[in-house]
Amino acid sequence: MEPQEIIQENIQRFGIEKWSEGYFNVNDDGEVVVHCGGQTLPLVQVIDAARQMGLSTPLIIRFPFFIGEQIKKFYRAFEHARKEFNYQGEHKAVFPIKVNQNRHVIERLLHYGQDFSYGLEAGSKAELFAVLISDTPDDALITCNGFKDRDFLDLAVVGKQLGKDICVIIEGVEELEGLIEIYRRAETIPSIGFRIKLSARGSGKWEKSSGEGAKFGLTSTEILLAIDLLRKHDLLGKVNLLHFHIGSQITNVRTMKRAIREAGVLFAEIAKLGLNIQYMNIGGGIGVDYSGSKSSTVASAEYSIEEFANDVVFTMEEMCQKHGLRRPGIVTESGRVIAAYHAVVVTDLVEIMGAEYDLSHYQPTSNLVKPVVELKYVLDYMNEKNYIEYYHDALEFKEDLRTMFTLGLCSLVDKSNGEILFQEIVEKTIEIALRRGENFERDPFLRKFLAEKYLCNFSVFNSIPDSWAIRQLFPIMPLKHLEKPCDNFGVITDITCDSDGTIGAYQSFDEATDSEYLPLHHEMDDYPVGIFLTGAYQEVLANKHNLLGQMNEISVDFDEEGKLEIVSSEQGDTVKDVLNDMRYDDAFINNQAKKCFQGLNNPKLFRRFRSYLNSYTYMTKDPHE
Amino acid sequence: MEPQEIIQENIQRFGIEKWSEGYFNVNDDGEVVVHCGGQTLPLVQVIDAARQMGLSTPLIIRFPFFIGEQIKKFYRAFEHARKEFNYQGEHKAVFPIKVNQNRHVIERLLHYGQDFSYGLEAGSKAELFAVLISDTPDDALITCNGFKDRDFLDLAVVGKQLGKDICVIIEGVEELEGLIEIYRRAETIPSIGFRIKLSARGSGKWEKSSGEGAKFGLTSTEILLAIDLLRKHDLLGKVNLLHFHIGSQITNVRTMKRAIREAGVLFAEIAKLGLNIQYMNIGGGIGVDYSGSKSSTVASAEYSIEEFANDVVFTMEEMCQKHGLRRPGIVTESGRVIAAYHAVVVTDLVEIMGAEYDLSHYQPTSNLVKPVVELKYVLDYMNEKNYIEYYHDALEFKEDLRTMFTLGLCSLVDKSNGEILFQEIVEKTIEIALRRGENFERDPFLRKFLAEKYLCNFSVFNSIPDSWAIRQLFPIMPLKHLEKPCDNFGVITDITCDSDGTIGAYQSFDEATDSEYLPLHHEMDDYPVGIFLTGAYQEVLANKHNLLGQMNEISVDFDEEGKLEIVSSEQGDTVKDVLNDMRYDDAFINNQAKKCFQGLNNPKLFRRFRSYLNSYTYMTKDPHE
Repeated sequence: MEPQEIIQENIQRFGIEKWSEGYFNVNDDGEVVVHCGGQTLPLVQVIDAARQMGLSTPLIIRFPFFIGEQIKKFYRAFEHARKEFNYQGEHKAVFPIKVNQNRHVIERLLHYGQDFSYGLEAGSKAELFAVLISDTPDDALITCNGFKDRDFLDLAVVGKQLGKDICVIIEGVEELEGLIEIYRRAETIPSIGFRIKLSARGSGKWEKSSGEGAKFGLTSTEILLAIDLLRKHDLLGKVNLLHFHIGSQITNVRTMKRAIREAGVLFAEIAKLGLNIQYMNIGGGIGVDYSGSKSSTVASAEYSIEEFANDVVFTMEEMCQKHGLRRPGIVTESGRVIAAYHAVVVTDLVEIMGAEYDLSHYQPTSNLVKPVVELKYVLDYMNEKNYIEYYHDALEFKEDLRTMFTLGLCSLVDKSNGEILFQEIVEKTIEIALRRGENFERDPFLRKFLAEKYLCNFSVFNSIPDSWAIRQLFPIMPLKHLEKPCDNFGVITDITCDSDGTIGAYQSFDEATDSEYLPLHHEMDDYPVGIFLTGAYQEVLANKHNLLGQMNEISVDFDEEGKLEIVSSEQGDTVKDVLNDMRYDDAFINNQAKKCFQGLNNPKLFRRFRSYLNSYTYMTKDPHE
Repeated sequence: MEPQEIIQENIQRFGIEKWSEGYFNVNDDGEVVVHCGGQTLPLVQVIDAARQMGLSTPLIIRFPFFIGEQIKKFYRAFEHARKEFNYQGEHKAVFPIKVNQNRHVIERLLHYGQDFSYGLEAGSKAELFAVLISDTPDDALITCNGFKDRDFLDLAVVGKQLGKDICVIIEGVEELEGLIEIYRRAETIPSIGFRIKLSARGSGKWEKSSGEGAKFGLTSTEILLAIDLLRKHDLLGKVNLLHFHIGSQITNVRTMKRAIREAGVLFAEIAKLGLNIQYMNIGGGIGVDYSGSKSSTVASAEYSIEEFANDVVFTMEEMCQKHGLRRPGIVTESGRVIAAYHAVVVTDLVEIMGAEYDLSHYQPTSNLVKPVVELKYVLDYMNEKNYIEYYHDALEFKEDLRTMFTLGLCSLVDKSNGEILFQEIVEKTIEIALRRGENFERDPFLRKFLAEKYLCNFSVFNSIPDSWAIRQLFPIMPLKHLEKPCDNFGVITDITCDSDGTIGAYQSFDEATDSEYLPLHHEMDDYPVGIFLTGAYQEVLANKHNLLGQMNEISVDFDEEGKLEIVSSEQGDTVKDVLNDMRYDDAFINNQAKKCFQGLNNPKLFRRFRSYLNSYTYMTKDPHE
């Protein structure tokens, strides 16, 4: 096959055109490139440049530009839908800062969002503080969700005094009592929203965010109680927003339509009780198609942003017509779809494990044990007619050998010989099956036996914690060599001392592989691997298992001449950083280190030892000295 | 019932005597107490003392003494077993620092372990640095597991030069090549261990740590290759340890016996090849009985430490006799069972949610809709004869009402009334069922409907990340009021904006509840709740979801007069701390804050705003000002 054909095959196989929203693709040299504002740049060039700056892998590469692109796509979709259905209410979006609180992310987000009055959402005291010192436009909305103590509520009052358009969304009656107490003493007060509990449940992994048993929101009885309370304190006029959230990563949009219809009935009822609701806040939850399958599976979303916006606006219009309501502004709180695309984690191959089963390691002995003799026979005489039968025989001989070894009836060399022969038999079986165009090579046992572990320099717990915790799927692929056919498949494994530090699921578009394994190359040197769509949630959910800390980071954006360049960087954690976190303060480290070297009289060794304090917590290719 | 009887009932119900290893119990005042070195202290006293120091909940209380107790129990068990089976090899233990790298934990661990030459295990460069500056006894073993780059290996060489007894355990052939290169240049070199891959698999959640497909360890072929390589470089004499690890939290000890037998065969074979193995490192994995059920379920362990030690030593002796081997030293790497008991997370109740369904909120209307009339009839005429039938009717009427509301055919007041009546019907149903001694109150729907959400001031993601990520169960119970019967049951919910921030499984000893709900009281004020056995893994796996950071910490130990007291404390994260983490440095915060207040001329407000930087990231009971 020509290299260009192979590249096309690999583009299909990794589905890059399906999950990348056009931001990433493969160039004619078989390298993954980023498409950014009309410019194209191979990721391997970025990695090289970073390395020259002293920032090795694992590495987060940010493309803040894509946050802007997603914001635009999102806004235009709603603008288009409002025109199409002649919807008179406005559309206002807020970004839930919990998705990625990194200052640089928020700064770029607000930069790109300022033309659209993009606002922010806070779910805790610290998040609200970050929101208040951010440069949100004056007409942007700021919403406060989650459970709030007096301090959180008071901070919202301060924000209002700073001129921000803040809405405090009430999650429970107790909270409302606290709010009223503070509001009665305050000079200026934020507006109030009600989070309502719908009986319609969402879809996807977070569907438990909704429904009658949900953690958040007011029931019918509680809404009535809240209205009574507010009326008593002459605060009813401050209620201007109804909010519901049917869960993150909604897999199909029908559930959203159902929720809007149910919320519409509540809206109409609440309007009858004399409240003037200006906003319907439909929450977040637009799914990101991590798997590229455009399906209703949990790692995907079967609708586009445009379809989502159309369905939402259409249903809002329909609902308002039905109940004779003034069209409220539509508030959205989507974060995942805005932030996910902008970050890529780059790791690199350290070692292909278990690659030693090779006939060159076979050690002829004078006295072969029976299962080894049999395995040799199978290997020698396996052919197109008998291969399935012979393969099954080989499985038995391998088991016999294992039993013999456990009983002390054969040597380690015998066992090794048998395992090498068995590996050869498996490879021959697959070769024959493929030649005959049969599907036998998809036999799960064969596959499992052949798949190799690709040990990569990163930590699942730090780079993609959702892969560990909730089995979230992220698209993964090699960043170069794509002009060569994938001649292997494997499982990506991290460097933690934890058997959970392995990626168990992959996007799958290649008939010959399934989602437990990733097609890969037999390359050993310089094999960088990209984990995509990591810009939402992964950074704040990261932990420091094995004291592997924050990764190196670089940001690729346009420089002053409009050229795509590394515009900023942050060093990841050093040994000292993670030790400080674990209460080993600098003074303690110094004292202990000195104590260790007492009487050794080896200042050179002392310096070498101390220098490790400044080394990156992950593996480094170039030895430290 | 007498208070003492109720206390006994609650002791049974929460199983405190089953999972606490005698470290915790309930006193005559219905408070949970800690039993520590012959002294007894109610946890609520500790909490009060902490609050007076300005350290509110959520709070980690450490009892480092229990680390010592567990170490002693562990050592004695092995000593006893060695005598019983006349095993001539020694027993050496290392604590895998990844279980809890907190300096104070490691310091106390080494303090209690010094009489037993307790060593440490490191799985990464940063962990090895921490280990090397720790005060390990000279004759303690230090093992290095996990994947190692040149720096990690070199650091081990430095450690050896510092006089530590370090063993570098080889995980793969590639790694060995790096090691040989470094060792050829070094003056003094650490000893070498082989991690071997067994075909026997472990049991429990981490059984994938073992078996042929495991992430770690050398296969037969790789062992032979490694021996060849080492022989070539005249380093074969440095190999002194064989290691295997069959997984964390082993649920039954039979799998360990099987593994030892298999490893024994390998040991004998390797001895024949001329290696002088002094240690058999059987890894960690002793289970902690979180559920208190002494079963082979994943949250439990069906054996005691004594049984484990007996089985291990017996099988080692048996294996050595069988193969005619000199008895190797037994090295253990258990960490969970050593560290889990020493820490308790204390949270407190903020609000019981959904407690508003009460007849006092029923609003009589002139024109009742049909389902409400029917529900009223059911409530009025339900009796012992018809209650099951009537309850099922009520389910239908409630559904009818929901449909009517969705179609706009009834008001919010109607819906609320119907829901209140339904709640009353459920309560009456349970009351009748209980009176008749029937099991109908265990109907899962009834239970789900009645269970209330107990909103508690903590973050699942920070306090017990394993509860979120791997559904790990931790024993949980109220810390006072246990002289009163539990008159409610609920689900513990945290303050994050995340539907996953809820505890879904509990220890269960009470026939009337199952493990989805926890028996609780209807108390509203001062209801502290303890989450026990959190001393292993939870601290380093914690994340900062919603910017809820590290918790306040106190350590309870013996003061100079031998009295149990708070001996040290650490403040948890403030708003400023978590913002710093997210790249909001102090200068940025100051500038932005000043910008926000420009032209406002309100220095008092500015001070109030800035003061929030120093507040605890969690909810605080006492408002900030």
